[in-house]
Amino acid sequence: MMRIITISREFGSGGRELGKRLSELLGYAYYDREIVAAIAENKGMNESYVEKLTESQAMKSVPMHFRSSLSGGIAMGQARTDLLLEQKKVIEAIARTGKNCVIVGRNADVLLQDSAPFKLFVCADMDAKIRRCMERAGEDEKLSRKEMERRIRAIDKGRAQARQIVTDIAWGDRTAYHLTVNTAEWDIKELAPMIAGIANCWFERRENDTVIGSL
Amino acid sequence: MMRIITISREFGSGGRELGKRLSELLGYAYYDREIVAAIAENKGMNESYVEKLTESQAMKSVPMHFRSSLSGGIAMGQARTDLLLEQKKVIEAIARTGKNCVIVGRNADVLLQDSAPFKLFVCADMDAKIRRCMERAGEDEKLSRKEMERRIRAIDKGRAQARQIVTDIAWGDRTAYHLTVNTAEWDIKELAPMIAGIANCWFERRENDTVIGSL
Repeated sequence: MMRIITISREFGSGGRELGKRLSELLGYAYYDREIVAAIAENKGMNESYVEKLTESQAMKSVPMHFRSSLSGGIAMGQARTDLLLEQKKVIEAIARTGKNCVIVGRNADVLLQDSAPFKLFVCADMDAKIRRCMERAGEDEKLSRKEMERRIRAIDKGRAQARQIVTDIAWGDRTAYHLTVNTAEWDIKELAPMIAGIANCWFERRENDTVIGSL
Repeated sequence: MMRIITISREFGSGGRELGKRLSELLGYAYYDREIVAAIAENKGMNESYVEKLTESQAMKSVPMHFRSSLSGGIAMGQARTDLLLEQKKVIEAIARTGKNCVIVGRNADVLLQDSAPFKLFVCADMDAKIRRCMERAGEDEKLSRKEMERRIRAIDKGRAQARQIVTDIAWGDRTAYHLTVNTAEWDIKELAPMIAGIANCWFERRENDTVIGSL
């Protein structure tokens, strides 16, 4: 059976880095922005527009004059729904390839429930997330700590909202994942092999055991 | 530096079994009901009374005629405060022994913050917890599934309340722990060595690194 690791993550927690390292350690395919790119290509749209509408707080990312019009709001809602349906198709197509993979974000844990993925949630305390984001920010996107914190909260709020479309179980709810790891006091390079070991062990159990399926 | 693993856990999640196994694998001392026994001895009280007042929903466990009297309510509140202070002393005394240990429950993660413990939260989905509790229930405490679910929720509510006395950070908040593990699809015997490995690696990092301390 195909082995899929899904990673849900707070913005700035290093979930993407952990996912990338897991895919390298395990020799799995890796999907993250690749999903956005596929949706954009299929729909003939700009990638950053797709990213905003599928994961961030959609309405906040749309110009004010557009949001203030009710018909505009409805149109955006429709556009978002279309893109989320396309995202679902892209993720299901990944599962049909049958290749072991790591998928970061996009509620793949819920969408691919039938493939029994190993579900990881990656978080960190706010100070660690701000530090990580400030270190990685480009010269043209220097924000103050306060602005960075607002940005992190807004992005995570958008992720929690996008999740509500596919499941009633809240984003980050500890029982919805096999493991929730706080990266604040870790070097992710050190952490990754241990998480890979746990995932491997879980997959072996799943393959030897038909009892699984309650999560 | 002393190595302390603290385990916070949902009732029925197997946190106690995981703690016991970690202590055996690592050769650490193990504290769980030992803490209640010490408080009971120091205060000359019954263990189950101490257990109820320090961890469960105190007022619910007190007879109705007693609860209905305001002075009784105040007396119980005072008794609970006294016991929680005694519990704090017992836990601090454990830390002063300097011996590596696993401590289950009793907000030891917060009380021993200065000793930089490795903080684990153990959870499981409700079905798995009910199953585990039903399997372990004695002949004299057979509850229906519905009753067991109510019992689990009540005990965890009491734990969440007891935590509010020592910290503003909610019980189970993912960023308050290094790792949150859902035991629903695991054999705890298989899981324990992997968690022990992660804790060991974290302690080694802590001992080689003065940066830690943000959590």
